[in-house]
Amino acid sequence: MRIMPARRVTLKDVAATAGVSYQTVSKVINHQLQVSEETERRVWQAVETLNYRPNHTARALRSQRSFTLGYSWPPSPKDQTNPILDQFLQSIFEAAQERGYYLLCFPYNMDTKQHLETYGELIDTGRVDGFILSSVEYQDPRVLFLLERNFPLVAFGRSDPELFFPWIDVDGAAGIAMVMSHLLELGHVRIAALAWPQSSRVGNNRMEGYFNTLKAAGIDPKPCWIQRGEGRFSFGYEATRQLLDLPKADRPTALIALNDPMAIGAMQAAREHKVAIGTQLVIASFDDTPMVRYLDPPLTSVRQPIWEVGQRIIPMLLDYIETGRLPEPTSVLVTPQLIIRGSTGSQINKQEGG
Amino acid sequence: MRIMPARRVTLKDVAATAGVSYQTVSKVINHQLQVSEETERRVWQAVETLNYRPNHTARALRSQRSFTLGYSWPPSPKDQTNPILDQFLQSIFEAAQERGYYLLCFPYNMDTKQHLETYGELIDTGRVDGFILSSVEYQDPRVLFLLERNFPLVAFGRSDPELFFPWIDVDGAAGIAMVMSHLLELGHVRIAALAWPQSSRVGNNRMEGYFNTLKAAGIDPKPCWIQRGEGRFSFGYEATRQLLDLPKADRPTALIALNDPMAIGAMQAAREHKVAIGTQLVIASFDDTPMVRYLDPPLTSVRQPIWEVGQRIIPMLLDYIETGRLPEPTSVLVTPQLIIRGSTGSQINKQEGG
Repeated sequence: MRIMPARRVTLKDVAATAGVSYQTVSKVINHQLQVSEETERRVWQAVETLNYRPNHTARALRSQRSFTLGYSWPPSPKDQTNPILDQFLQSIFEAAQERGYYLLCFPYNMDTKQHLETYGELIDTGRVDGFILSSVEYQDPRVLFLLERNFPLVAFGRSDPELFFPWIDVDGAAGIAMVMSHLLELGHVRIAALAWPQSSRVGNNRMEGYFNTLKAAGIDPKPCWIQRGEGRFSFGYEATRQLLDLPKADRPTALIALNDPMAIGAMQAAREHKVAIGTQLVIASFDDTPMVRYLDPPLTSVRQPIWEVGQRIIPMLLDYIETGRLPEPTSVLVTPQLIIRGSTGSQINKQEGG
Repeated sequence: MRIMPARRVTLKDVAATAGVSYQTVSKVINHQLQVSEETERRVWQAVETLNYRPNHTARALRSQRSFTLGYSWPPSPKDQTNPILDQFLQSIFEAAQERGYYLLCFPYNMDTKQHLETYGELIDTGRVDGFILSSVEYQDPRVLFLLERNFPLVAFGRSDPELFFPWIDVDGAAGIAMVMSHLLELGHVRIAALAWPQSSRVGNNRMEGYFNTLKAAGIDPKPCWIQRGEGRFSFGYEATRQLLDLPKADRPTALIALNDPMAIGAMQAAREHKVAIGTQLVIASFDDTPMVRYLDPPLTSVRQPIWEVGQRIIPMLLDYIETGRLPEPTSVLVTPQLIIRGSTGSQINKQEGG
């Protein structure tokens, strides 16, 4: 066995140890050429013995690839945490590292033109091989930009059906449909929804579950039951105050919110109205932020399979990058899970709730 | 004005447009040499006109630098969000981009040996120029490893005083001292603490504020007031149940928790004991997770200036990388802010609380 050199181990050291040429080592470690099994074995053994690690910059130059994926996401409002961020990032880091890639993260510029300039710069300088997008909206400018540049991307979230690009998404309609079926089973017929504006792609996907379930049950929702606004605590609070002030015949006995902060605002409004949550007004929401299980009562919510999304989005993107062909399947829809807790836990009290 | 070439713009195009040599352009854009102001102006004008962007890999090869910073952090437990992650990341992304650097993120491997291997690989392959660390503990193996490799790092958090490396930290002792002064002013003398084990560096920093404030007030805390465990909801809940079962003369009327999940567990235990939060038992904590303002009652908590930490840690690291000298000052302590809310909002009721 050779003594490990104190200086940086080079390709030439590996070649000398393996007893082959410099070029042969390069070809073996870059998987560019079939050599005899015996030669390949000797090269890999020398790599192992010497603990040789190819310089990333040199490798990037040879392969014209950076082995780096770009990701940027819109920051959370100051009064909210991003309930899925940590888990999503950890999942994609792990899946990427398994295939020798790392994640380059960059700031989300609220000025779209400037934000796209960063995408352009990362492409033009060869810093990344592909992008992950999230919070995708209709006619998303990032999607349009990357499609025009013909640069690999996979999105966590859909856009317009006519925009053809690879994506994985959580089936929001299915999640809300699960909540709605649960509420109908509990005997509720007047079910309100705290939703985002109709310009929200994610919101519309989720609201499909509301409309379709009511339609199948033969219930025609009153327009006043559907409140649309910013997905914040303050909107949930204000909208619920209005709902609780409706005449008794119109007043909802159940409420779904498209995210947890709106549901928590709704709980606050109910408490102030001395309306018992879980009996006089049942409340359910979407995202299952870790803390909602500790509310009083604990909040029923729909949990997204975030770890799975991260584990699946990376192979889709890497297959795209490495083969130059769209991943197969090009789009994937995963099903969320309904977590039932005290905020919908009790049978409706017809006396008080009706 | 020249017509923009359709192919990729090269250094030679810039040289031709500026009417200078290839080498001069290279020197100007790499800030390696003083040339005449007029030449420099011509080169930068040509760069602008042609929209020239140096290839990152080529730039990295020339400069022996990756213009990339490495960061990894321990994932949150499944039942907790990381209250500061999004804001910290956005702040460091922005500060890094301003100086032409991006962040490379990698998974946090719970196996220390494997985790350090990733640090070693990122150094050996030249993928990063320095590291940001967080959640730093005593004798932190990452700090020891990077000091041994003499590789640039700046930590968000201190370690042992004898380990000399650059760090920025939030003054946890000052934060808890603010809470304690607030509780003493409200008239409390029996104040319990939900703390981490004594092996926790962050915990011990924060607890200094507890011990020092009580000492200054001439109060000797009873050992049973100090409960140590995992910083989770379940521990806060169990520990508070025990505190509320103490004989009346020992029973605390106030409680500080070193993080929000423990405080939320304490609130749950108080509710189950029919103890009014904010009057019979006041509760305060640390971190000010966005959602705690919406609890019932809203939770008094200490807010860390996370954006500021991110904005300051990046220049410290980049100065270190670019000059090869430790940043000056080498360590920075920033002061948090006490946010007073309903969970400590009322004057103590001597009748019920005592």
